[in-house]
Amino acid sequence: MPKIVIIGGGFAGLTAVRELRGAELDVTIVDRRNHHLFQPLLYQVATAALSPSDIAYPIRSVVRSQKNTRTILGEVVGIDLAARQLELRDGRLDYDYLLVAAGARHSYFGHDGWEAFAPGLKSVEDALEIRRRVLLAFEAAEREPDPDELARCLTFVVVGAGPTGVELAGALSEIGRLTVAKDFRTFDPRKLRVVLVEGDSQVLPQYSKELAAAAQRQLEQLGVEVRLGQHATAIDDRGVMLGDERIAARTVLWAAGVQASPLGKLLGVETDRAGRVSVAPDLSVPGHPEVFVAGDLMRREQDGELVPGIAPAAIQAGRAAAKNILRRIRGAATQPFRYRDKGSLATVGRGKAVGVVGKVEIKGFFAWWIWWVIHVAYLIGFRNRIIVLIGWAWQYFAFSRGARLITGRSWRPERAAAASDAESR
Amino acid sequence: MPKIVIIGGGFAGLTAVRELRGAELDVTIVDRRNHHLFQPLLYQVATAALSPSDIAYPIRSVVRSQKNTRTILGEVVGIDLAARQLELRDGRLDYDYLLVAAGARHSYFGHDGWEAFAPGLKSVEDALEIRRRVLLAFEAAEREPDPDELARCLTFVVVGAGPTGVELAGALSEIGRLTVAKDFRTFDPRKLRVVLVEGDSQVLPQYSKELAAAAQRQLEQLGVEVRLGQHATAIDDRGVMLGDERIAARTVLWAAGVQASPLGKLLGVETDRAGRVSVAPDLSVPGHPEVFVAGDLMRREQDGELVPGIAPAAIQAGRAAAKNILRRIRGAATQPFRYRDKGSLATVGRGKAVGVVGKVEIKGFFAWWIWWVIHVAYLIGFRNRIIVLIGWAWQYFAFSRGARLITGRSWRPERAAAASDAESR
Repeated sequence: MPKIVIIGGGFAGLTAVRELRGAELDVTIVDRRNHHLFQPLLYQVATAALSPSDIAYPIRSVVRSQKNTRTILGEVVGIDLAARQLELRDGRLDYDYLLVAAGARHSYFGHDGWEAFAPGLKSVEDALEIRRRVLLAFEAAEREPDPDELARCLTFVVVGAGPTGVELAGALSEIGRLTVAKDFRTFDPRKLRVVLVEGDSQVLPQYSKELAAAAQRQLEQLGVEVRLGQHATAIDDRGVMLGDERIAARTVLWAAGVQASPLGKLLGVETDRAGRVSVAPDLSVPGHPEVFVAGDLMRREQDGELVPGIAPAAIQAGRAAAKNILRRIRGAATQPFRYRDKGSLATVGRGKAVGVVGKVEIKGFFAWWIWWVIHVAYLIGFRNRIIVLIGWAWQYFAFSRGARLITGRSWRPERAAAASDAESR
Repeated sequence: MPKIVIIGGGFAGLTAVRELRGAELDVTIVDRRNHHLFQPLLYQVATAALSPSDIAYPIRSVVRSQKNTRTILGEVVGIDLAARQLELRDGRLDYDYLLVAAGARHSYFGHDGWEAFAPGLKSVEDALEIRRRVLLAFEAAEREPDPDELARCLTFVVVGAGPTGVELAGALSEIGRLTVAKDFRTFDPRKLRVVLVEGDSQVLPQYSKELAAAAQRQLEQLGVEVRLGQHATAIDDRGVMLGDERIAARTVLWAAGVQASPLGKLLGVETDRAGRVSVAPDLSVPGHPEVFVAGDLMRREQDGELVPGIAPAAIQAGRAAAKNILRRIRGAATQPFRYRDKGSLATVGRGKAVGVVGKVEIKGFFAWWIWWVIHVAYLIGFRNRIIVLIGWAWQYFAFSRGARLITGRSWRPERAAAASDAESR
């Protein structure tokens, strides 16, 4: 029986596994993590609206009804294309066909030292770290007598105004003005400052100028300060430099760049600056018809534009790659992949969103409502759907946030963290 | 206005704060963590049935409608009884009246080195660490070719058969036999071995021999191996020694001892071996009528028996201490605290529990059902109540567990954890 190995349990990998359901194959899915993550809602974990288990689900459970598939929790550290063998950190795995769908992480454009001061948002751990920092900033503000330091505690800078940056900035402003106002006593929540920095000349660069302007107005209604055409030139524990201007901020979040998984480089074929693998039209790797790449790790131009690194594109590519593997197994010709853009939505806050559905641009409450329905519908297959629904309905009506826990090893006020680590058990 | 400081946002501290509602006082509650934790359900987080935010809630939110109260996230490192001042890790806090309700942690009876191999269950972090270990043990079993090592992966030892130990052992056996059976392919879930070790001659030593025997039967129906009159004499990374017998186990959990918070010692008065403070009948500290102790940190004998370290006793003591503070402020005589035992329940598994309600001993499905109703009712005030209810109903009908995420810094297979820590960001 042909052995098919799929690396990565994200949208591309899981869709491919499902596409192979019922076929007479020996399918293995390998991931470093035990869970699939619904990344489009990850910012809601970072901003204390949802719990991790609301949007993450064990891969093993997702594929459990699929008899031809087994799940391995493991990390791929080498790919031997000649021997058709993967090297895991603790073992080896042979394949006849391989799909690499290992995704991407954020990139600091060579400034890796910024990561300590400005975490990005890709994994559950990232989201919990951001949640911890945001909540601790409000706790610190509550006890801060010095006005300058108080202002720094209440300043949040988000670098990058793509969908994630816009969502984070909008949600932070909402938290600060609605939830925090009720819970804290000593500071004025109107002093909250959320700054959204974008190098491009508009927020949400993938959209038209009109939509971007609408999103910017929505952000500004929420009190977000939008800085366009500006770049972070330095980030440290006191804040961010934008050219000559220093913004003193205790909390800086990174939503600017994307770097593909290092597994792309292991394939030994051409990758672009972001580490994405240039694939053939059928998504196979040039020179290796038995190896395919899909999802954020894949670089594919179509009509002069890159296929975007978003969930719908990953789902479509995962399905296409799986179908081409099946075609190759039965000796048929593979088909070129064609991305069908059905539209996309970016949410800004309660009742605020912009986007394109089909070819129609929409914005405001209607856009937000469609965004909401689509995201809940996508959680189909997760038992969590009804809980997410209730949690959101609650939050919407009560302006409350349910998951405001500060957990983790260094949950203590930052000054004390190092000294008390030993006794934190 | 009299300044009242309450250390600890557990059952005793929060109940005391609520009792002071509406009074003309300046109340401050200090806790090292930002959340109150519903500890009786913590084992459900450890066994992947609930998420942390289902059973934890920000203290700041609990008290937000109480105008006379402020919340401080901070760690108390010193108590100056003469100056009536607390030393926090980052500041000082004056009081006129003090309630110390800092609780307890697990104790290893002098074998602190065991903690690394056998984590206990007191905090959210503890529960997530246990969840991680349990889930990784099944992942390791799925890939283990060696039969001895496989047996070790599938062996879980719980040390201590009080309520927490019984709950953990029962839940582990249920997970293994029901959930795991569906999700894993290569090993036989009937090979799962859960061993519950207890030094006493019965499980649940606080109950009668009859109830304990019933609980033991329930545990054995779930496949738990109960070892009575035996003590762990050594614990390392390979397993547990019970006298001369070695039980090879990858996962060992500690539910045996309790040690009161070190804050008790800072009071400079008599403490018992477990670090509990011997209080006067009105719960004040001998020689310091303005300082009170309540909850697990308090040692109080009543009718020749210690008031137990359980949530109902902490709630009653917190309320009594707050009332005595109010009496002292208005110059009235304080009242002695009297613990009213309304009964208690210990759950073993689905439809399995034992306990005492009033003076009546109950067991089986009826006891479990009452346990379930009481615990959901206790979550009143948490928005999470309906979600917990739905999660449980789902789990009960679908034999599924919703929160099976492996997260944290060392989520990788154990052999790889050290080597790959650097790149885990």
